[in-house]
Parts: sequence; C-alpha cells; structure tokens
Amino acid sequence: MSDRQMTLIAFLQAQNCSNFPASWRHPEAAQDFTSAAYYQRIGKTLEAAKIHLAFFDDRLAIPDIYGDDFRVTMREGIRAAKLDPMLCAMAMGLATERLGIGVTYSTTYYEPFHVARTFATLDSLTGGRAAWNVVTSLNQSEAVNFGRTEVLEHDLRYDRADEFIGVVRDHWRSWDDDALRMDRETGLFADPDGVRRLDHEGDWFRSRGPFTVPRSPQGEPILIQAGQSGRGKQFAAKWGDLTFVIYPNLEMGRRQYADFKSYLGSIGRDPDQTKVAPAVYAVIGESQAEAEDRYAAIQALAKPIDALVLLSEVLNFDFSTKGYDEAFSSEEMDGISGIQAFRDRVVTMSGRANPTVGDFVEFTRRGTLNEFPVFVGDAKSVADQMEEWFGTACDGFVLAASHVPGSYEDFTRMVVPELQRRGLFQTEYAGSTLRENLGLPALHV
Amino acid sequence: MSDRQMTLIAFLQAQNCSNFPASWRHPEAAQDFTSAAYYQRIGKTLEAAKIHLAFFDDRLAIPDIYGDDFRVTMREGIRAAKLDPMLCAMAMGLATERLGIGVTYSTTYYEPFHVARTFATLDSLTGGRAAWNVVTSLNQSEAVNFGRTEVLEHDLRYDRADEFIGVVRDHWRSWDDDALRMDRETGLFADPDGVRRLDHEGDWFRSRGPFTVPRSPQGEPILIQAGQSGRGKQFAAKWGDLTFVIYPNLEMGRRQYADFKSYLGSIGRDPDQTKVAPAVYAVIGESQAEAEDRYAAIQALAKPIDALVLLSEVLNFDFSTKGYDEAFSSEEMDGISGIQAFRDRVVTMSGRANPTVGDFVEFTRRGTLNEFPVFVGDAKSVADQMEEWFGTACDGFVLAASHVPGSYEDFTRMVVPELQRRGLFQTEYAGSTLRENLGLPALHV
Repeated sequence: MSDRQMTLIAFLQAQNCSNFPASWRHPEAAQDFTSAAYYQRIGKTLEAAKIHLAFFDDRLAIPDIYGDDFRVTMREGIRAAKLDPMLCAMAMGLATERLGIGVTYSTTYYEPFHVARTFATLDSLTGGRAAWNVVTSLNQSEAVNFGRTEVLEHDLRYDRADEFIGVVRDHWRSWDDDALRMDRETGLFADPDGVRRLDHEGDWFRSRGPFTVPRSPQGEPILIQAGQSGRGKQFAAKWGDLTFVIYPNLEMGRRQYADFKSYLGSIGRDPDQTKVAPAVYAVIGESQAEAEDRYAAIQALAKPIDALVLLSEVLNFDFSTKGYDEAFSSEEMDGISGIQAFRDRVVTMSGRANPTVGDFVEFTRRGTLNEFPVFVGDAKSVADQMEEWFGTACDGFVLAASHVPGSYEDFTRMVVPELQRRGLFQTEYAGSTLRENLGLPALHV
Repeated sequence: MSDRQMTLIAFLQAQNCSNFPASWRHPEAAQDFTSAAYYQRIGKTLEAAKIHLAFFDDRLAIPDIYGDDFRVTMREGIRAAKLDPMLCAMAMGLATERLGIGVTYSTTYYEPFHVARTFATLDSLTGGRAAWNVVTSLNQSEAVNFGRTEVLEHDLRYDRADEFIGVVRDHWRSWDDDALRMDRETGLFADPDGVRRLDHEGDWFRSRGPFTVPRSPQGEPILIQAGQSGRGKQFAAKWGDLTFVIYPNLEMGRRQYADFKSYLGSIGRDPDQTKVAPAVYAVIGESQAEAEDRYAAIQALAKPIDALVLLSEVLNFDFSTKGYDEAFSSEEMDGISGIQAFRDRVVTMSGRANPTVGDFVEFTRRGTLNEFPVFVGDAKSVADQMEEWFGTACDGFVLAASHVPGSYEDFTRMVVPELQRRGLFQTEYAGSTLRENLGLPALHV
C-alpha cells in the first residue's frame, strides 16, 4: 500500500472529438455530442471509477489559419465544433455527485465579475465541485470572433491575467461563510457586516461589488493552470491548485517536475498543495498484443493535414505558406505569437534555430496521439508505466482520450482496479467537495 | 372550447426571492436557492401543468444606489443575491423535457459570439427549448461591476442592441440544417459548403466566424423582449417572438396591445407571430375569502424600504436624497437615466411633470405585489379575470410569484385545470421544441 495516491483527471472537449482530432473517425466514437446525454454518460463512467475531476477544454473559434480557410477543417472534422463548455459541464455535474467539474474560461474575452459569478454558481449547484482552468487565450482565430484585431503580447497577457484572477478571487472572498442568514423571525436576510464591496481599480480592470453570490461550498473553486513558459510557470505557481503540463517524455518530465516543485518552495507555496499532472493517453488491451493493435489502428486515423491545421492555430502562423522541408526564417520564428513553449521545444529538440515545417510536425506531434506520452499495454503494463512516472515526474495524470467514451470506459474498467489494488488510487472519494477530494485545506472567510 | 389558447410563462429569478422582494419573508418560501434542486423542483411543477416557458430574469449587481449603501439591501434581502441564471436554467432544463427554458442576457456586458454560443448550446442540450430574453442593461450598479463608468444613452443602447442581435442571429444561421454529417465511411465531418463565415464589421461589433455550434434543434432560440418606450417598442416589434409587458391596468393594457399589434402589422410582421404577455400575480384560495386573506398576508410582507431601494435602481437615482413629499426638479427628471417607461408612467398617472417620491412609490408600486396586476380569488375567479384580459389585452401571461414555489404550486394545481376545462389552455404540449409549442413556424437554412 502506497502512502501517496495519484490524482486522476479526465480531459474533455465540448465537441465531437477528444484532444486527438481524429477521434471522431474512430468506429466506436459516440456521435451525440450536441446532447446532454453524451456528457452525462461520460461523467457517470468517470465517477463510478472515483476519478477526481473532469475538465473541459475550450476554444472560441474553429481552426482556420491554415490556408486562411475553414473548409478543410470542416471537411476533416479537425476540432470543427465547440459548444459552450460551461453548460456541458453543468449537465455532467447534475448527473454526478462527487466528480469534480472543471471548465476552461478565458481571461481575455470575459469580465472578472462574470467569471466569478458563473464559477461560484457552478460551485453552488454542484455542491462544491467546481474548477476553473484559467487560460489567457492567444489565438488569432479567437480574437477575430470577439472583434479584437490582435492578441496581446505574451507576458502582458499574464500580467493582465494576474489582475483578473485577483479580482475574481476577491469577489469569491467578499461574502463571509456565515453571512447568509435568511432569518424570517428577525427579518435578517444577510449580515451586512459579513459582505464587502471590492472597489477594485487596477491597471486592467475595475469592479466594485458587492458580489451577488453568497459564499459557495468550496469557498473558492479550484484553479487549474497550464503555464509552462517562464512567465507562464510563475503564473501557474502563484495561482494553481492543479498544474496541467505537457511533457514530451519521462526524462524531461522529471526535470520539469523537480524544477517546478522547487520553484513553488522558493515562492513560499507548499509544494504538496499544487498537484502537477501531465496529459497522457492510454491505449489498453486485454493483452499487450491487443493493445498494440489498437494503438496502430488509432494512429492510422490521423491524417497529415490534422497536424498542419492545428500547428497553424497554436502558433498563429499559416503553415500552408511553407513547404514541408522549408526552414522558418529567423524573422518568422520571432513573429510566432502562439504558445512559446511549443516553439521553444521544437528548437531544443531539433537542435535547429530555424526548424522546418517537418521539424514542427515531428517534435510537437500536434494532431497525433503522440502529442502526449502514450501508455500502451494491458492493465498491468499501463499501471506499471503510470507508477514509473508517479511521484518523480507528477502527482497524477490528465487522461486524454483516443476516442470517446471508449477510452474512459477502457481505462476505468481495466486500469483503475489495478491501480487500486496497488494502493495507488482511491477506492472512495475522500469527501464531498473537490477541494476535500484533492486533499487541499478548506478555506474560510 | 375556445379556438385560441393562452401562452403561459413563469417569471423566475436565480435568487432567494421572486420579482416580489419580500417573497423570501413568506413563511412557505423555499430557502435552498443555491442548490440545483430548487430550480429543478419548480421546473417539474411547471411542466406537469404544461406551462410553455420558464424564464429567468437577471441583474448583474446588488441594489445599492439608495444611500450609496448595500447594507440595507443585505439586511432586508431586497434582491440581495443573484446567481448565474444560465446555469440555474440549465439545471431546470435537464429536469424537464418539454418546458421552454429562457434566460436574460445583456447586450452590454457580453460579446455576440459568446451569447450566440451559449444559447445555441442551451438549445442543443435541451432538445430545442431555449429562449433569450434580450436586455440592454441600464443600471449604474451593474456598470460599475463591469468596469464601465457610465451607462450608454437610452436610444443608443437600442441601436447597439439591434446590431448585437443581428450578429447573434447570423451566427445561428451560419450552419445549414444538414451541414453536420459525421460520415466515417467517407471521412466527411461537415459539408464545407454548408457553413459560412460572418465577416461582420459594423458600427459596434466585429465578429468573423465561422460559428462553432452546429445548427441547434430550433435553428434559432426564441427571442423575448420587453421594450415598451418608443425606441424600445420598435426594438421589441422587430425582434421579439414574445413580448413581455407591464400593464398598470386592463384599460391601459388593451390600448397598448391594440397599438402594438397594429404597429407589428405596419412594419410587415404577422401580429400573431409575436405573443404579448403582461406580468401578473395570482393569489389563489379555495374560496374568495381565503384568497383575500392570503393576499393581505402577502402584502404585509412588503416594507416601505423595498420600494425606495428598487426605485433607486430602476431609475438610477438615489431616492434617499429626497423627502417623501418632495417634488423632483425638472432637471432631476431629465437626468433620470433608467427605464423611461417607468418615469413616464408616473408623470402620466400623477398628472404632474414634477412628481414627488411618494408619487413614484404610488404609481409604480415598485417593490410591492401591486407593481403588476394581481388576480385574487378562487380558481374560477382567477380564470375569469384572465379570460377577461386574454385576447383583448394579451396573448398570454407572465406569471410572477408572490412566493416560491408556493405560487406556482397553487396556480398549477387550481387555476390551470380550470383554464383547461374552458379550453383556454393546452392539456398537452404541441410538440417537442419551444418554437413548436408557441405555434411559431420552423426555421430552416
């Protein structure tokens, strides 16, 4: 029996496909993604296996930077739909009782008051299971849907996001735990001394309050953050209860994990109070051979165009303008405005300051299952691989799906019992709120 | 058997109280307004009685203009909380199968792309039951929560809202009915010729598209509008599938109804395709005497401060700065920036260009049950009163609640069967979408 247990998180999309764009092409992929039942079925599967949290990715646009054209995206189904994840999450939350429910929300296209209110409401209506995956939004396709001509420079986005989260958190803290009374005898609805205005006037935002939602069961919903670049890492370390990372391999993962945990200590945060979880896929079979066959079949669903379309989005650069073996000029490299960790990884791994399109495809593996580490094997083998990572490279895993709901059905049916036998994963939820279930201290005001 | 039937709509709040602020003080008022169960219970009650639609009001602030102080609001519970109504509505939608689900959303504090996406998602996840109550937001307490220094001038708000709705609707129209294919045999996800960009560049908004939600079951969610002033009426006539009105009495209601229907004709809209429904309360007893007793008991829950706090909000004027019998100066009257129909009604009904605080209290009846017409009586009497209004002053009613859920339980148990016996109200839903249930034509792209 291990004295520490993994945090397990499902990585969901409010759309036809998982993070793996070809997943909709899988013969067993469900097609009813515009119904509540689709999300509720997944939630029940996850909760039956005691998964801690399901969180929804978001994107406020359809990919169309590649060739300045959405037609190929539509035809091939490369993340060609995206419902409002907050409502899909609410549907999942109402079909479950203990599963944490997370939603991605951008600090760029919404106001802090709205974000504070919607997550406080989600937390209330789910009995304390809400999490906010904070993103700063960097994509040009999203900007034009919201009437912005360009995205903000990388580090400034984080400065602005720092202030944004501060305002949101201060709204959450503006009702005392016991301010709401509803005492009909005395006619006292709420203790006026237990509620405060914010009167926030900062560099980016103003918001006055008082907030309109009484303190929710968790007090403050859980914050998820995925920053990995220098400024992004500072941001994640400052705010994150959970840090969602992408490691290209175990070795790099171990290095980054040690570095991040030590950084947490250096800024005075308890390193145990911020869980680190890398995105991984698991392809599981009754035997190793069956798993390998499944893996090959899933890989074969991906098309080269998937990679090019998604690289164009994540880097805000039209990859159709260059040949596959053509190198990016230094000027082009400097002009890339998307996720810098992506660009930097390609430079490091290719060993070239001016990588080619092919280098981007090879070293990011965007659009393929191999974008994240893939654990392939029978239940014991997948559990072995997870155990190898756990504790030295991570505190848990963000489970991406090769297809939905099959990936989650396989994982929960085969791997979870094996992890539980080894004492590596919980057999019951620790409490009723996500905060309790993650082992984080209760917050009081 | 009447050949026309009433449209019945419930007027809900994502908070402790109904539109009647004292409702939380009612001995039978439910107190679990921060739970999903509260909203789901109400929805089930309404659906069992075949009510067409429940819609949630919204407000992005707690009242605090009166005395520039939220303390009295908190203490007395004068609309002192407001959850995110979209999530409360989603909870209600998932507990029901035919009830229409409406939500108020502001054109001032959100972007058209977000509003289009959240309502298309609500429509999808509820199987075609979504409605959007469009408000332009005029209140100073809301503006300061969203970092705005002042609200936009009345008519400009509507110009901006016109463009806003146009962008939202065009997003909804940008996927053909049959564009989504998910054909795994041919690998065709969506027909690229069936999806369009908007490329909208207007005076107020830019939004490019393509939209990220495939066409929802209703095609376009139902639009609810409440404009009654000159410019507001134009706006409601142009866009509304349902027009929500406030009539001080039957006589004025008949005049406004005839006027509005004739105006609809004059702009080329079919007057039958825009339902007009005034807000009303019903206080029902087994006998007339019991109903009168209940009415008196409910009226006694209201406090004078309720009126002053709410008048200050709706008119953006601090009523604590004037004595009860002190007249407003002409300059003050001109400076009132809130709902102009409110201000104008007080001038008309008091016969004074410079009314007093007392005139505002008396002629708006804000904060009391008598703000809207109240039908008091046993089931037959209430049905008689509704029948008197129906057809000459309205096409249906927006049912406000003196307390929740009691008002809806009383109405559905006692009055609905009486209306059904008279052939004035449906005994079964006409279809599965709200559009079908309102008798509006299907929309196709």
